[in-house]
Amino acid sequence: MKAAVWYGQKDIRVEERELKPLQDNEVTVRVAWAGICGSDLHEYQEGPVFVPVNEKNDLTGEVAPLTMGHEFAGVVEKVGKDVTKFKVGDRVAINPTLTYGNKPEDLDCYDGFSFIGLHGDGGFTKFANAPESNVYLLPEGMSLQDGALVEPTAVAVQAIKEGDVRLGDNVVIFGAGPIGLVTANAAKAAGATKIVVLDLSEERLEKALELGATHVINSGKVDPIKAVYELIPEGADVTFEVAGVAPTFEQAIEVTRPRGTMVIVSIFARPINWNPIQLTNKGVKVTSTIAYTPSSFAQTIHLMGTGQLTPQGIITSEIELDDIVDKGFEALTNDKSQAKILVKLSGEK
Amino acid sequence: MKAAVWYGQKDIRVEERELKPLQDNEVTVRVAWAGICGSDLHEYQEGPVFVPVNEKNDLTGEVAPLTMGHEFAGVVEKVGKDVTKFKVGDRVAINPTLTYGNKPEDLDCYDGFSFIGLHGDGGFTKFANAPESNVYLLPEGMSLQDGALVEPTAVAVQAIKEGDVRLGDNVVIFGAGPIGLVTANAAKAAGATKIVVLDLSEERLEKALELGATHVINSGKVDPIKAVYELIPEGADVTFEVAGVAPTFEQAIEVTRPRGTMVIVSIFARPINWNPIQLTNKGVKVTSTIAYTPSSFAQTIHLMGTGQLTPQGIITSEIELDDIVDKGFEALTNDKSQAKILVKLSGEK
Repeated sequence: MKAAVWYGQKDIRVEERELKPLQDNEVTVRVAWAGICGSDLHEYQEGPVFVPVNEKNDLTGEVAPLTMGHEFAGVVEKVGKDVTKFKVGDRVAINPTLTYGNKPEDLDCYDGFSFIGLHGDGGFTKFANAPESNVYLLPEGMSLQDGALVEPTAVAVQAIKEGDVRLGDNVVIFGAGPIGLVTANAAKAAGATKIVVLDLSEERLEKALELGATHVINSGKVDPIKAVYELIPEGADVTFEVAGVAPTFEQAIEVTRPRGTMVIVSIFARPINWNPIQLTNKGVKVTSTIAYTPSSFAQTIHLMGTGQLTPQGIITSEIELDDIVDKGFEALTNDKSQAKILVKLSGEK
Repeated sequence: MKAAVWYGQKDIRVEERELKPLQDNEVTVRVAWAGICGSDLHEYQEGPVFVPVNEKNDLTGEVAPLTMGHEFAGVVEKVGKDVTKFKVGDRVAINPTLTYGNKPEDLDCYDGFSFIGLHGDGGFTKFANAPESNVYLLPEGMSLQDGALVEPTAVAVQAIKEGDVRLGDNVVIFGAGPIGLVTANAAKAAGATKIVVLDLSEERLEKALELGATHVINSGKVDPIKAVYELIPEGADVTFEVAGVAPTFEQAIEVTRPRGTMVIVSIFARPINWNPIQLTNKGVKVTSTIAYTPSSFAQTIHLMGTGQLTPQGIITSEIELDDIVDKGFEALTNDKSQAKILVKLSGEK
């Protein structure tokens, strides 16, 4: 079967690849749609970041070259002999996060985690295997394309829960990339009142308004702190740092009200120069998220099924697997108006 | 009356000074004992930090030269005509924190605050005036010397509450200066199990054991992170950063368990170079305290009165007002075995 395989930085090849033998606890999924994630892009641009290159990953037992793709949904094609929850033909989304499972779910990921599609073969291909416990049934009426959006949306759901966003809260989101956009959508679903999104790109900010933002601020054109305080004089109840750079880290704290919470959602690539006295002076609490718990993944599917979460607007392009480098990775590198690019595999609804 | 008056950096003079006229809502206290705080030391060594030098402080209406001293207790000498809660002869401690009072007490200080004894005349003298609302009756049997320890102990009580320390928790404290020491004492009072204190000074670490630490680690002699994990393999539930430098900031996060809390108690004098991904990887939450609420001040008095809090061991020296520069500020500057130095004013029990 054809697959998009990571060999190295700037070296992702679409080529023939064998599906690994199905394990007794696994399900084979016929992939319908698979999204390109910011992590995939990092592996392409500056990898390996997560991809195991010299020795096998502890949780997947695999090593590069690997089939990428961890945001995917499809139809059950085959089930291993110990699988009890799924049957052929079931429409499912995959939670790609693998953990050791020795701790309660909110602590588990801090023992280490790996991703199907980053640390082992994933979904940019025709068929993919996943352990039964990582497979989630889609509700009646939820499309397989929506299923491919569950994974990034679950990141936002986890962030909103971590920030303890409550009905009527005012929230501010720094960064309008795909995760920033779905965070705005999830904030809306959580009943936030004012949802202010900041970014440097007008196109992204327009998307943010479509996804649920009530106000947008172009940080390149106005003083972002002043602009937020004009909208929310008392300061935001919860802020989300989804940009991952020093200026937005400080700005996010600065616009949060005393005893409010700033949630780090982004992955900071490098150290920042910062004085912790900012927290002392402002009285702001800082927390963070990494991925999502299985419960949050399930809740995301449910909330998308009921229409409470509507992340569909983040899709900017649908492409064929053969075009994944040019119209996928290169497009995301060069065109900042791109948000979520979906790769059409079987293309089933 | 004789007073220790701040004129400038390294310029604190013991000289004659008039008591300002008593306001209707104020109480005049005959000072018994007054402690030298780390903030006082900063004003001496590198001030002005808080002391208003060019224009009058907004809350006190005063400007340098000022009588220092904000950790003090004494006996009511005189009451203003609107004072209803106190009478001449009452034994009291002073909460030196002045705020605007426009917000609930947990938010109030973030609107700005000033200190009696830093932003206005304080307690290193014979008589001091304070608003009735800043005066607290000491319980029967609690000494006036103990009363002078309420203020620094209240800082620790606030920190323990902020960290949400619960019965049975394991806590780690970075820094065994006076505030680190009373934090260990307050952690004990809150029912913590393991109380690990780290510092570079053996003398301070010995004090920590007296005050309630169950284990001490000399960070200059062993790897502090490894040493904490040997004592608490699962990581600390709550950690306190009471040293205020980059290495302890990172270490404090590193030894906290996933979803545990690190509380910044110290005042960071300068920026640090740090990668926020440490929080993402560790799953640690960061919060901070500044001073204490009126409720925490009152609770501190109560807990000292019942003997649940026993900060008395932090006192390393009792000196006369005339000796405050040499045996006070200079001693604290040069002798790291000094913790809390108390100035004897009336010296009443």
